[in-house]
Amino acid sequence: MADQQKLASLDSSIVSRLPSFAPTLFEAKTRKNLTFEEIARQLGRSEVAVAALFYGQAQASPEDVEKLSRLLDMSPEALVGMMGFPDRGRAGPMPPVEPLIYRLYEIVQNYGYAFKAVMNEKFGDGIMSAICFSSKVEKEVDESGASWVVITLKGKWLPFTRF
Amino acid sequence: MADQQKLASLDSSIVSRLPSFAPTLFEAKTRKNLTFEEIARQLGRSEVAVAALFYGQAQASPEDVEKLSRLLDMSPEALVGMMGFPDRGRAGPMPPVEPLIYRLYEIVQNYGYAFKAVMNEKFGDGIMSAICFSSKVEKEVDESGASWVVITLKGKWLPFTRF
Amino acid sequence: MADQQKLASLDSSIVSRLPSFAPTLFEAKTRKNLTFEEIARQLGRSEVAVAALFYGQAQASPEDVEKLSRLLDMSPEALVGMMGFPDRGRAGPMPPVEPLIYRLYEIVQNYGYAFKAVMNEKFGDGIMSAICFSSKVEKEVDESGASWVVITLKGKWLPFTRF
Amino acid sequence: MADQQKLASLDSSIVSRLPSFAPTLFEAKTRKNLTFEEIARQLGRSEVAVAALFYGQAQASPEDVEKLSRLLDMSPEALVGMMGFPDRGRAGPMPPVEPLIYRLYEIVQNYGYAFKAVMNEKFGDGIMSAICFSSKVEKEVDESGASWVVITLKGKWLPFTRF
Amino acid sequence: MADQQKLASLDSSIVSRLPSFAPTLFEAKTRKNLTFEEIARQLGRSEVAVAALFYGQAQASPEDVEKLSRLLDMSPEALVGMMGFPDRGRAGPMPPVEPLIYRLYEIVQNYGYAFKAVMNEKFGDGIMSAICFSSKVEKEVDESGASWVVITLKGKWLPFTRF
Amino acid sequence: MADQQKLASLDSSIVSRLPSFAPTLFEAKTRKNLTFEEIARQLGRSEVAVAALFYGQAQASPEDVEKLSRLLDMSPEALVGMMGFPDRGRAGPMPPVEPLIYRLYEIVQNYGYAFKAVMNEKFGDGIMSAICFSSKVEKEVDESGASWVVITLKGKWLPFTRF
Amino acid sequence: MADQQKLASLDSSIVSRLPSFAPTLFEAKTRKNLTFEEIARQLGRSEVAVAALFYGQAQASPEDVEKLSRLLDMSPEALVGMMGFPDRGRAGPMPPVEPLIYRLYEIVQNYGYAFKAVMNEKFGDGIMSAICFSSKVEKEVDESGASWVVITLKGKWLPFTRF
Amino acid sequence: MADQQKLASLDSSIVSRLPSFAPTLFEAKTRKNLTFEEIARQLGRSEVAVAALFYGQAQASPEDVEKLSRLLDMSPEALVGMMGFPDRGRAGPMPPVEPLIYRLYEIVQNYGYAFKAVMNEKFGDGIMSAICFSSKVEKEVDESGASWVVITLKGKWLPFTRF
Amino acid sequence: MADQQKLASLDSSIVSRLPSFAPTLFEAKTRKNLTFEEIARQLGRSEVAVAALFYGQAQASPEDVEKLSRLLDMSPEALVGMMGFPDRGRAGPMPPVEPLIYRLYEIVQNYGYAFKAVMNEKFGDGIMSAICFSSKVEKEVDESGASWVVITLKGKWLPFTRF
Amino acid sequence: MADQQKLASLDSSIVSRLPSFAPTLFEAKTRKNLTFEEIARQLGRSEVAVAALFYGQAQASPEDVEKLSRLLDMSPEALVGMMGFPDRGRAGPMPPVEPLIYRLYEIVQNYGYAFKAVMNEKFGDGIMSAICFSSKVEKEVDESGASWVVITLKGKWLPFTRF
Repeated sequence: MADQQKLASLDSSIVSRLPSFAPTLFEAKTRKNLTFEEIARQLGRSEVAVAALFYGQAQASPEDVEKLSRLLDMSPEALVGMMGFPDRGRAGPMPPVEPLIYRLYEIVQNYGYAFKAVMNEKFGDGIMSAICFSSKVEKEVDESGASWVVITLKGKWLPFTRF
Repeated sequence: MADQQKLASLDSSIVSRLPSFAPTLFEAKTRKNLTFEEIARQLGRSEVAVAALFYGQAQASPEDVEKLSRLLDMSPEALVGMMGFPDRGRAGPMPPVEPLIYRLYEIVQNYGYAFKAVMNEKFGDGIMSAICFSSKVEKEVDESGASWVVITLKGKWLPFTRF
Repeated sequence: MADQQKLASLDSSIVSRLPSFAPTLFEAKTRKNLTFEEIARQLGRSEVAVAALFYGQAQASPEDVEKLSRLLDMSPEALVGMMGFPDRGRAGPMPPVEPLIYRLYEIVQNYGYAFKAVMNEKFGDGIMSAICFSSKVEKEVDESGASWVVITLKGKWLPFTRF
Repeated sequence: MADQQKLASLDSSIVSRLPSFAPTLFEAKTRKNLTFEEIARQLGRSEVAVAALFYGQAQASPEDVEKLSRLLDMSPEALVGMMGFPDRGRAGPMPPVEPLIYRLYEIVQNYGYAFKAVMNEKFGDGIMSAICFSSKVEKEVDESGASWVVITLKGKWLPFTRF
Repeated sequence: MADQQKLASLDSSIVSRLPSFAPTLFEAKTRKNLTFEEIARQLGRSEVAVAALFYGQAQASPEDVEKLSRLLDMSPEALVGMMGFPDRGRAGPMPPVEPLIYRLYEIVQNYGYAFKAVMNEKFGDGIMSAICFSSKVEKEVDESGASWVVITLKGKWLPFTRF
Repeated sequence: MADQQKLASLDSSIVSRLPSFAPTLFEAKTRKNLTFEEIARQLGRSEVAVAALFYGQAQASPEDVEKLSRLLDMSPEALVGMMGFPDRGRAGPMPPVEPLIYRLYEIVQNYGYAFKAVMNEKFGDGIMSAICFSSKVEKEVDESGASWVVITLKGKWLPFTRF
Repeated sequence: MADQQKLASLDSSIVSRLPSFAPTLFEAKTRKNLTFEEIARQLGRSEVAVAALFYGQAQASPEDVEKLSRLLDMSPEALVGMMGFPDRGRAGPMPPVEPLIYRLYEIVQNYGYAFKAVMNEKFGDGIMSAICFSSKVEKEVDESGASWVVITLKGKWLPFTRF
Repeated sequence: MADQQKLASLDSSIVSRLPSFAPTLFEAKTRKNLTFEEIARQLGRSEVAVAALFYGQAQASPEDVEKLSRLLDMSPEALVGMMGFPDRGRAGPMPPVEPLIYRLYEIVQNYGYAFKAVMNEKFGDGIMSAICFSSKVEKEVDESGASWVVITLKGKWLPFTRF
Repeated sequence: MADQQKLASLDSSIVSRLPSFAPTLFEAKTRKNLTFEEIARQLGRSEVAVAALFYGQAQASPEDVEKLSRLLDMSPEALVGMMGFPDRGRAGPMPPVEPLIYRLYEIVQNYGYAFKAVMNEKFGDGIMSAICFSSKVEKEVDESGASWVVITLKGKWLPFTRF
Repeated sequence: MADQQKLASLDSSIVSRLPSFAPTLFEAKTRKNLTFEEIARQLGRSEVAVAALFYGQAQASPEDVEKLSRLLDMSPEALVGMMGFPDRGRAGPMPPVEPLIYRLYEIVQNYGYAFKAVMNEKFGDGIMSAICFSSKVEKEVDESGASWVVITLKGKWLPFTRF
């Protein structure tokens, strides 16, 4: 039972904001006692991407579905919705109210212009793509034993077209 | 004159949201033709932190002020406000309307729950601090010659206190 | 199963914002494995208009319903709601959170006044109608093999009445 | 004096939202009695881009500044701000209240999901870039003598990176 | 079946904002193939008022209910809710997203102060009542065959009490 | 001095939302002791349109400017801004807080769907234009001596284009 | 059946905002044909307080429940929720859209600062409590036969504590 | 100097929301050391109305201006703006943030539906006018010496017109 | 039955915002007639923390679940959701409409900057953590017999990292 | 100069939201190199209250002004505004964007219902007053040398009046 404290599950109150396969997937994950780290290893994808798949924020390939159906012991038909075109961005409210997600939002709020100024000087007039984009989360433990989260956001630089 | 295209400056229409030293600093930076990279090297701080200083989103130490005043050829008195306690978070509107800053916001919107699920499984119930926090921006060029932005967000993990 | 990756379907979480025929239509379309392009050809209408019909944002003619019922193998009675007067504009939130739709919104945000200035100089004081209006989406592939989307928005110019 | 009815100028009440060079540019344009069409021809750029430059929503190259200063009889120094990195997106309120701009917003509101469905089927899972992007406005007159606006939006297709 | 194109019906997605008798009434109206014009004639009331009754925005008298029950072939008991005190104003979102309703909102937005100035000069300091109020919609066809909508809003003038 | 109670003037706190000619015009109107009714008669335009001109919500023709400059004893140059393309819709907040304007908003809120249903049945699928549009305000006094406001809104019917 | 026009009932579309006993109570009240005035007399409480009890905005005492259960012919168990601690303030949207409730809101909007100034001068620095508070609604008929509503709001004055 | 603690004055930060005569009036009131009670007695009006006059929320008559100019030792010309048609409702933000004004708002929020139900049963379908309206604030001291505020709101009952 | 007046229960209208175990827990608590004080004593935790557990705003340990299941006579399986990672912050609307919760919000609104200034002077540039955080509520009765609430908020001080 | 890092000062960008004496006071405080702790000791008031005085969120007594004028070497006339009735609640935006103030807001967001449940069980149906209220901030250092903030909020319990 204590394993419940190790696995991310789905708060029933956000189910209505997510595609219908999301709760089914999370239940299977709990039943199989699998972390996103383990599933990601099996799928050959990043943990962040796999969690995004579960929340309906990324598109699964046929291979993803095949592997997931085996791993979670589900029929591929039940997962067919994962291969549709995601309708992104509605999982939670903005501004976020969840403290963990709010901290990420606060970083954008406080450092947004600083990021812009630094990128403009390094790259010119443009943006970092959030589409040609990948991300990962890593854990570091410092000498005092404290844990640190390291999030990497990597996106292609897109210069504004001159027209 | 073309250098103008290499240096971040301050849009006059956001000046009223920033502390009064901000436009003075940016003008001196332009006059001295300095990038944030160069200033950061002189101050021994990160580029993101230095840009945040200019926008009034971080606190300067007396040494920062001393070095800046020399570098920018300004009297230290003109920079005294930089050592005050910053009143953070009001530089731009939220949701951001600037495309570059919006992309960062969109990452939080789309991947917020994925980040939360992954961090919870890796670290337990808590948050990544946005205070015990540092960040950097790096440039990578891939084999095809395309540029990529790599943002690193590093924050201490804070578990919720049991009480 | 991989076809799922080629056909637009309906995210279950937006069904409650749409008229009741919408999910039925999308399911039939998936079952028949039809793209909007194919349906549009059969109906003699634009793809954008046909997709709008499916989302309940445009009115179907009796001929549309007749053809659709044959094409999708549904009774015309099930499609009768499509001939009602649409209650437009509630399919998604504004500002949009879906990245693809947000980009269109951002174009209005960034270039809105530029469009206005150019139209005013070309046409006088008035608006481009969004009612006497049509639109199409085309694909272009440039010499490097990259794909480009070309959206055409065509609306009647309406000068403000002098009174 | 009637020429005033042919040239776009700047409403004094939005000046505070724009960079400081904007009202200067518009005044010079009025003084020189130039349309955006004429300026665009001189700069070798699109009318929409040139209007965006005037509103501070696009970056000018040194050549743009040189040509503009000659055309408008202004010192290049007065236009130096146009070569800075634009702080986009704050020219007007969203939702727009100006009827002409609102119509464009309404098109996104009504047809947003239709555009998404059609693009997804034509291109896969991704977005049309608003950065690798150009736009033009054209006038058509139909056989009955009525005028039509044709807006073309052309953006690079960016598929979501698999990670 | 083409009659569907002539009768206003109820979008299923707004039913939850309306009193429970609304969908029942609209279904009966469709079944009986009646326009609001015909119902209004039978009830001796204005079309606008009758449509407002159907949307739960006006109170029915016992005579209205009696006549409606006969006309629509429903038991008077099913219509008893129409005689309750309406809970007005929640049928649709504000600002309206439906294009037809938005145009009315835009008239208030654009001409609100003009209406106020004209009424103040004609009547003094006060308001036009929206309670002691009636309205009608008429159709005019001009010499070119084009149709025009004429909406009349008639409200009692209420001067501010001096106290 | 009591005439002040008969003429609409401009609240100083909304001046910053209006074009710069607006306060000048209102002051001249007060100085000349002219009502909108009288000015409208001189210009051969509707009172509502003339008030809209003063608030910068409508475009003046060269003839309007000529007549106004004579009537108000102002140089035509001071009125040249009135011939520009208006930037409409920002005179007051929405939802309106001014009681008189709020009542008009409330009419849209309460009767919006009723108007839509009645127009759809009378005209089909489309909208009443707010651009090909005119309006007038009239006063009626009933037998009991009570005053009534009669607002007429007349707009061209625009059917949705089938495409 | 005409009695329906005399009794307040509950619009089905707000039921989801209220505690579950609310619709049950209103139905019993209708069945018993009781006004709030009559129920208030039986409970020895104010009409406003009794209506607030029905909407779940006030706490019932055991005696209230006992009397109500007899009066409405309901089992006390069905009313037990009325003795819980109310979760106030969510019955309707703010700003109110219901015209009657909006008028009260408008009074606060228009006269809020006037009330504050008058209370500050009469009582000092503090507030009128909305908790140590009671209210009543009375009807007055003037000599012309017109009806007037008189609402009395009585709250304890709470001075700000000096600390 | 302690008198400052007895007289309502104007916070400099809201001056920009009020007509230009407001700060002048408040300064004269302070200079003359007059309460609203004393001014109201001289004008023969209610205290609430007089405070509303000072905030630009009510219209002054020529007699009001005459008396005020004598009482406050100001030229009538300086007060001429008070006789204009007020642009009401913009003195403070809504929802109010000032605690005293918020409590009045909270009463509407908590008891709004209760007021509506009671008024509907007492008067029928309609509203209490906020225009044909007066209000007063009184002080009561109970036997324990505690102070109570008694606000009376009196408005004409307006039944919805049947049309 | 009067005990209902002593125990906090759950308003049915907020159930949809909370995890599915919340209503079950509250019902068991009512059935067992237990206060949070008694449950907290049994769990060896603070009352505030225990109430937060019931609302799904804090994570339960396996021991919490074990003890709760015994105390409330529920199977541990029914409580397994309490050990998941909470999705915090969505229990009620912000700004709060419940008067008790609003008062806490108002304290932040009125004294926020005062708290910041005092903490900055006492601790430097940083924040009080809301994660490394505990809180308690105590009751004090003064000499006059009046009750006072004493809330203690204790959070670790986190200085901004210099980077 | 390093003292700047120990004293709270006023960000110039919030000055327009505060009464006019606020920047004067903060400048004098900086000039005199005084902390709120020292000023509070001199005034015999709490640090939080004194900081609130400086931000215009609390009323000063004549004695406060007298002492402050001596301490800060200012004429009492310059401080006369501090004795006016404060117009509270507008110092910063809500939701707060300043990280320190946001954490307090987050505590209300996350624990609001928990506080309510605990208070209701301890005190009955009512609220903790934010008016009959005091607060203090204390520093604790734990055995590991880490600093903790302890905020105490003490407010009178106000039971809802039964009426």
